[in-house]
This record gives sequence, structure tokens and C-alpha cells, in this order.
Amino acid sequence: MDADQFRQAAQSAIEEIIEHFNTLPSRRVLPNIEPGYLRPLLPQSPPKSPESWDQIQQDIESKIKPGLTHWQSPHFMAFFPALTTYPSILAEIYSAAFSAPAFNWLCSPACTELEIVVLDWVAQAIGLPECFHSTGPTRGGGVIQGSASEAVVTVMVAARERMLRDLATAEGLKEDTPEWEDRVMVLRGKLVAIGSDQAHSCTAKGARIVGTRYRTVPTALEDNFDMTGESVRKVLEECEAAGLIPYYITTTMGTTSTCATDRFAEIKAVLASRPSWQKIWVHIDAAYAGAALITPEYQPIAREWSTGIDSFNFNMHKWLLVNFDASCLFVRNRTDLTSAMDITPAYLRNPYSDRPDTVDFRNWQIPLGRRFRALKIWFVMRAYGLSGMKAFIYKGLHHGDVFVELFGGRKDLFTVVTPPAFGLTVFRISDEAAAAAGSASGALTRQVYEKINADGDIFITSSVVGGIYVMRVLSGSWLSEEKYVRNAFEIILKTTEEVLSGKPNGAEGPKN
Amino acid sequence: MDADQFRQAAQSAIEEIIEHFNTLPSRRVLPNIEPGYLRPLLPQSPPKSPESWDQIQQDIESKIKPGLTHWQSPHFMAFFPALTTYPSILAEIYSAAFSAPAFNWLCSPACTELEIVVLDWVAQAIGLPECFHSTGPTRGGGVIQGSASEAVVTVMVAARERMLRDLATAEGLKEDTPEWEDRVMVLRGKLVAIGSDQAHSCTAKGARIVGTRYRTVPTALEDNFDMTGESVRKVLEECEAAGLIPYYITTTMGTTSTCATDRFAEIKAVLASRPSWQKIWVHIDAAYAGAALITPEYQPIAREWSTGIDSFNFNMHKWLLVNFDASCLFVRNRTDLTSAMDITPAYLRNPYSDRPDTVDFRNWQIPLGRRFRALKIWFVMRAYGLSGMKAFIYKGLHHGDVFVELFGGRKDLFTVVTPPAFGLTVFRISDEAAAAAGSASGALTRQVYEKINADGDIFITSSVVGGIYVMRVLSGSWLSEEKYVRNAFEIILKTTEEVLSGKPNGAEGPKN
Repeated sequence: MDADQFRQAAQSAIEEIIEHFNTLPSRRVLPNIEPGYLRPLLPQSPPKSPESWDQIQQDIESKIKPGLTHWQSPHFMAFFPALTTYPSILAEIYSAAFSAPAFNWLCSPACTELEIVVLDWVAQAIGLPECFHSTGPTRGGGVIQGSASEAVVTVMVAARERMLRDLATAEGLKEDTPEWEDRVMVLRGKLVAIGSDQAHSCTAKGARIVGTRYRTVPTALEDNFDMTGESVRKVLEECEAAGLIPYYITTTMGTTSTCATDRFAEIKAVLASRPSWQKIWVHIDAAYAGAALITPEYQPIAREWSTGIDSFNFNMHKWLLVNFDASCLFVRNRTDLTSAMDITPAYLRNPYSDRPDTVDFRNWQIPLGRRFRALKIWFVMRAYGLSGMKAFIYKGLHHGDVFVELFGGRKDLFTVVTPPAFGLTVFRISDEAAAAAGSASGALTRQVYEKINADGDIFITSSVVGGIYVMRVLSGSWLSEEKYVRNAFEIILKTTEEVLSGKPNGAEGPKN
Repeated sequence: MDADQFRQAAQSAIEEIIEHFNTLPSRRVLPNIEPGYLRPLLPQSPPKSPESWDQIQQDIESKIKPGLTHWQSPHFMAFFPALTTYPSILAEIYSAAFSAPAFNWLCSPACTELEIVVLDWVAQAIGLPECFHSTGPTRGGGVIQGSASEAVVTVMVAARERMLRDLATAEGLKEDTPEWEDRVMVLRGKLVAIGSDQAHSCTAKGARIVGTRYRTVPTALEDNFDMTGESVRKVLEECEAAGLIPYYITTTMGTTSTCATDRFAEIKAVLASRPSWQKIWVHIDAAYAGAALITPEYQPIAREWSTGIDSFNFNMHKWLLVNFDASCLFVRNRTDLTSAMDITPAYLRNPYSDRPDTVDFRNWQIPLGRRFRALKIWFVMRAYGLSGMKAFIYKGLHHGDVFVELFGGRKDLFTVVTPPAFGLTVFRISDEAAAAAGSASGALTRQVYEKINADGDIFITSSVVGGIYVMRVLSGSWLSEEKYVRNAFEIILKTTEEVLSGKPNGAEGPKN
């Protein structure tokens, strides 16, 4: 493909993408295909000779789009949003063109330096305390990770190594000796990571990856499923009584199932109450809800984090207008990361690699190479401005209010299970309606959920919290509007009535 | 930014990118800036109000490009290539537009299914044995990871968990019991991963991340720095004598420093010779050189892998025309991955999640979310065809031959240190020339290397192998041509003469 062919192909692709977004509201949000749909549509082997762009592009519409789940659709109410926007797409074009696995500063200085600057912009924009700015007093700073899961594994490794170094050093051992290695292997087997039973599954998976134990802190409906200080204390005491060494805790701002926020002040007070607990790495997972910190109303939450918090993470690629992947991880002390992650062979050394004023981000992450992801944060922050980003978050919060009002108007049918938060509404079929239909709320809620997604006009998520089967809806997509919220409620209402009455009720398709 | 603004912005971006590639040969490959260059050029805080695309785009040329290291430049001879191509850029545009963290099949079936199909295409194209095809007899298959490092960590976790499960089960323990957990923690402390001293540093880093010990197998110049069967046997015996349990080995096709290829047949024979060694996970890291398997000349190497190999990885984003990130990992048995990585909470369950005919790739990797990376492999394979991909690899191999011929013509000045392989030439200043200049080869080689990169007209890498300081050159970039190889040799030659004579010699800039 030469430059002229590329120009033509790119123009055609851009037109197709514009048309895609323009027509998205009238498309089904969920694909209407069964597993294995694609293989019969494609050749069994790669082509021997080059194909033209026309041939390739045709297959996007005919073979790929029928299998897409449209996360940008205004009918997408599942999980959390995962946005893309025009400025973010533009940045990906440049990122692909400037492609470089920029593992060292020297391997593409602009990639490293723009990341440092824009993450300081982000830290300012969401009101993070100074300790998380690259210019702050604690050698902190931000780094873009691929996902919150990757960020969690990264800080768990840093936490584990910091704790082991502390313990082995306190025993008088010397690093890089056989005695150190043997002792560290024994101590590692006693380490335990902690998270609430509402923490995202990436913490349990992270504990498995880094090879430590994991214990969950129970939460309760009466606490809104927040993790409380006392519940943390109880688990820490149980761990210590069993001879285990807690080294890491995930606290959450906006849990996956219900958007609960853990009680940071209480938990910090508990951790401060014993010297051994003061060494525990405290991570804040705000993957979705962290975006709300861009509004002044939420920023007081972040002020609490100026002490006692080792790391904070949120995904701009969820609610803050940047496309996947842009998971922003901030640490209080970068040396915690680099001490754990830095392995520098001869071929990665260069005259800049040991200078104190250069950052080699490969030592802040699991992979070696890295894409130029700072560009998309930079483009989005500039194209929207703080005003545009705030306005977008307010819109999502408003949609949550609309949902709450709508569900509140039908208390006969629906029970809102937890306090609505960050635009998320968690509900179930009311006990009253279930009893009238001669069934249990859980079974009916599940039936309604499965029917809605099988119909595929809107896409929602179910979960089980505190033993309660719930549905959750959230309207934060790029193209979302209040009319789609109301339309979604109508679909939920009709499907519920249909399930309760036991007969089909002709649920409507999406309104445009 | 509305659709019209996006259309205009994208057209302008595309023109800029075409112009960028057209003018790349006349640009310095290395930027001419010092650490910290960017911050003073940017505002200290994000903009309050939206900025126009013109304002944003201007800064690409004036602020970003001066800080880029041009991996696509034909003057880039460092590390390994990391290509981008026009079809690959087109795919990134669609990937950004269809953005979705497609962690489950249901979360975007096309994303999962295209990945399965194109990785089968890739497996066919590079002649991988059937056991690595998704349709093969061993429940194998491929998955796209972000980088070879990520792939290595992933298979190390799978290897560790498989070994621990085997050992604990053999002791009669039951999974999910406190006894199992305690015993596994003790056993884990005895596990040791193995790689040669030429294996990429990601294996040592991986061992640290997954929390096991690591031992290196020494290599020697007389074996071309290949890892041999006997050297593996010796390390395995030492480990077992020390009470350790080897569970994982990285073998390499094309090591980073010299492109050595480990002796797979010998190593397999050693591993087969003891029951405890038969359980060791064998990974092949072919991050760069694996691309050469697309030519029939190299495919016999892969035939050896039909037995005794658990996983294979190569990066299409190095030499095979796909932009970073597209690291293709193939496993012999997918259950090894999913048994280690699958943690499925309620909110990730759906009617498809337990069906045997669906694949949830989140259980094949560390992160939860994943980008639609299969598109770029698909586009590139179709736009180039197998014929175009082969032709490109032959070109890189030819450039290696040209380098070898040029260095061979100046044996008075240069010694080629290891057999040239996969287009890579590893050389140093000859002992004869060093003696004549009254210095040692290592010191002079380093001086020449540092001067070449400081001049910045070509970019090369140095390394230390077997205690020998070497330079390495490789011309495999998208825009590479033989004339740039000859130009690079002239620069190396002139700089060497200058360093040897102790006076500046006026090395030329790049020729276009």
C-alpha cells in the first residue's frame, strides 16, 4: 500500500467510522450471532497474494460489524462505560504512525516526557494530593498502564518486594546472598493481600499472579457494601493470629457491583494503629468512579489521600472520554516501583539510563515496550477542556438521577438495592411484586435480566451482592442522552411486566 | 469535536503522516534534545476551555516530533525493528472507533473470534505444528499479548500453577483447603525458573514478578552463545542438588544480543531424560527472529516443536509489518492458562461464559480488558499477502548479508563476533586495530558506539556478550533500503577511523 492508496483508504475508513457513529443509535447494541459465527465467513488460510483495500474494507461491514458489541451505543447500560471519542481516535492514528516500543527515555523521549506532563495535568484535574504529582515532595508520579488489572499486579509486586526487603533487612540479612533468597522465599509464603468481597476480581487474580495468599474482608448491605475500618481490623487480626503477614490492601472508590466507596478515613485509622500495619501498601482502585473527581463536588474525597495511601488508579478509558487503553496509575514514591521492577541488562543501558533526571517507564510496569498512549490523553484534555470534561461527567450523573426517579416511581415493581452512586442504579424486582407473581425476587430478577439481554435492544449487567441477585444500569456512553435512559426504563418496565404476568408483552426496539 | 471537524482533522492528520514518512529519511533518527526538553514547552495545567484541532495539531510538529526517536527511519539500526505500516495504521483507526474492553466473548464476539482465526492464519504462515493451532489435537491456540514480556509472565504463572497443582495433588492434598494453601506456599518457595545468560531480561523480571527463584544457564562464545543441552543438564542438576524444583525454562530463537538460537533438540532430550524434568514448562521466545519462520528456509526449525514445547511467542510488531502491540503467544494446551488465570465473579458471568465453544480471552492473560488487536494482523496479512510478507523478510536478511560483506572487507578494523543471523551483525574493533591505536578493543568499541549515537545520524545498540563489548547493527525498518545499509557502514567506518586516529574526521549526515 503506497501513500496514495493509504490516503484514499484512510478517507474511506474515516467516512465509514463517521457513518458508524451516526447510525449507532438505530443498531442493536448486542450482536445477533452465535459463538463460532465468524470462522465460516473467512478463508481458512491467509491470502498468498496482496488484496486491495476495497476487498478488506468490505469485510468490516459484512463480517466484523455483525459481531460487535457496541460499547459506544447509547443503549449500552452494562458494566461501566468504555468510551471512545473523535480526538482520542486522532491520537491513536498518530500513535500508530510514531510506533515505537518506547521502553527507555532515549527510545522516544517525547513519549516518556509527554506522559509525565499529562499525568501531572490529570492529577491536577482530579484534585489528587501533591504526593502523586511528579513534581511533588515524595518522588511520586503517574504512569499509564494498559488496564486497572495490570496496575494492581504492578503495585502488588512493588508492595510485596518492599515488605520482604523491610522484613529481611530487619533480620540483619544482606541482599543478593543465598541466605537472603532462602529467607525471602519463606517470608513470601506468609504474605497475604487483602480486599473487600466487593473489590474487583483483579485483586484476587493479582494475588494469584504475584504468588501470595489473599483474604477478603466481608461487607454488608447495612453498610452499603462499603469496606469499614472495623471489618478491616478484624481480618488483619485474624491474619496475624494465623501467623500471616498482611502486605497489601485494595480499597475501592466505586465498586464494580454497586459503586460503593470504602471508608478511607476509618481504614487509615485502623492501619495507623499498629506499627506492622503501617507498612501495608494501600492502593485505591477508582477504575470507573475516579473520573467523577474532575468535578469540584467530589474532590474532597481525594484530599483524604494526602497521607497513608501508596497508590491510586483510575481508567480514563472508562468514563473520561479517552479510548481503551489509558489506565492512570499514580504512586506516592516511584522508588517502590523501580526497586521491584528494574532489571537492566547491558543492551538496555545508554548514557541517559542512569541519569537522575530521566525516567525509564519500563521500570514502572510489567511489560518492557509501551505504546505512545499519552497522546490521546493530551488530545482529549485539550479538545474538551476541563469544562467539557466536567460537563460530560455531569451528564452521566444526571442520567443516574433520571433512572433513580423512574425506578422510584414504580416502587410496586422495583426495589433500588443500594444508594445510587456515580450514575449507577442497582435494583431488583420488589418482594411485593414477586410475591404477587408467586415467585422469589431473585429468580424473577434473573429472568428479566436474561430476557432483556436476549432481546438485545439494551445491554445491562446482573450481579449478586450480599446474596441478592440484582440488575445494574448505567448510562455513560459518549452518545448517551436522557431519551435513551427513558427508553431503557420502558424496556425494563415492559420486560418486567411481561415476566411477572408470564406472557409476552411486545417489548419495543430502541428509539432513535 | 463534531463529525465534520473530525473529518477535517483526520484528513489533515493523514496528510501529515504521509509527509512524515516521506521526509523521514532526511530527518535525524535520534532526537537532538536533552532530558526535560518538553515540560517548558507546555502549559503547566490542562486548558480550562476546549482548544481547536489546529492548535493541537501544530504542537505535533513543533513539540512532539523534535522528541521522537524514529524507529521507522531507514537509519534506525538499533535493538530490533519495531515496524508500522499503512494497513496497520488503518486497523488502529477502526480499533479505536470500535473501542471495547472485550474481556468476554459476549463483550464483543468479533474481537475474540477474529483473534482466533487470524492466529490460526499466523500459525499456518510460520509453519507452527498443529498443537499450537486452535483447531489442533491438544486444545492449543494463540492469543495476542501486548508484549513478549507480558507473554512470558503469563506462561510463567501458568507453569508455576501447573507444577504446584501436580506436586500438591501427588501428596494427596485437596484443592481449596487450608492444608493445600500452606503446602503450596512452601513448595512455591522452592520453585526455580531457568533461562540462559543470553535470554531476554524479561525472564529474570518475570521470575521476580511471579515470585520464584531464577537461575541462569551459562553460554559460551565457542557455542555461538547458544544454550546447549549439557549446560541445561548441569544447571538442572545443581538446582535439584540444592533442593530446588525447576518448573520453567525460556529457550530462545534469536537472542537479543547476538540472535543466537538455543539447541532445542539437545535441550528437549535432556528434559526428557528424567520424569521430574518432563514436567518443566518449555517456552520459546522468538520475539524478533520468529518472523523469519514465514520463509520456507526457516520452517524446519519449527517442526521440532511438535512435541516437548509448551508455548511459543513472537512479536509481529517487531519485524512482521504490524505496529506495536501484537505479540503472538501460542500454547499447546489452553487449559494450562485458564486454570491459572480464571477468576470469574458474578458480574462477569453471562449465558455464554460457561459454554465450551466460547473463549473468554481474559483467562489467557494478565489484564481483564483487551483492545481489538486482531484487526491489524488481519489487515496486514491481507494487504501484503504471504508473498509480500516473505519478500519483506528476505529484504531484511539481504541487508544483513550486505553488512557482513562490508565488515568482512575491513577485517583490519572490524571483527565480526558471532555468526550473523536473522539480519543481525555483531562486531567490535579488531584487536589488531586496537593494538595499533594503543588501546583495548572494548574501550574503543564503546567509544565508537557512543560517538555514533551522539552524532545521531544512525542509531545502533551496544551490548556485552561473554565479557566482550560489542556493537550490533540490523536494518529491518519498513523504509530500509540497501543504500542506507551502505551509508550506515560508511558512518561506522569513518567514526572508527576518527576514534582510532584520535581526531575528528567529519562523519557525513544521512543520505536520502
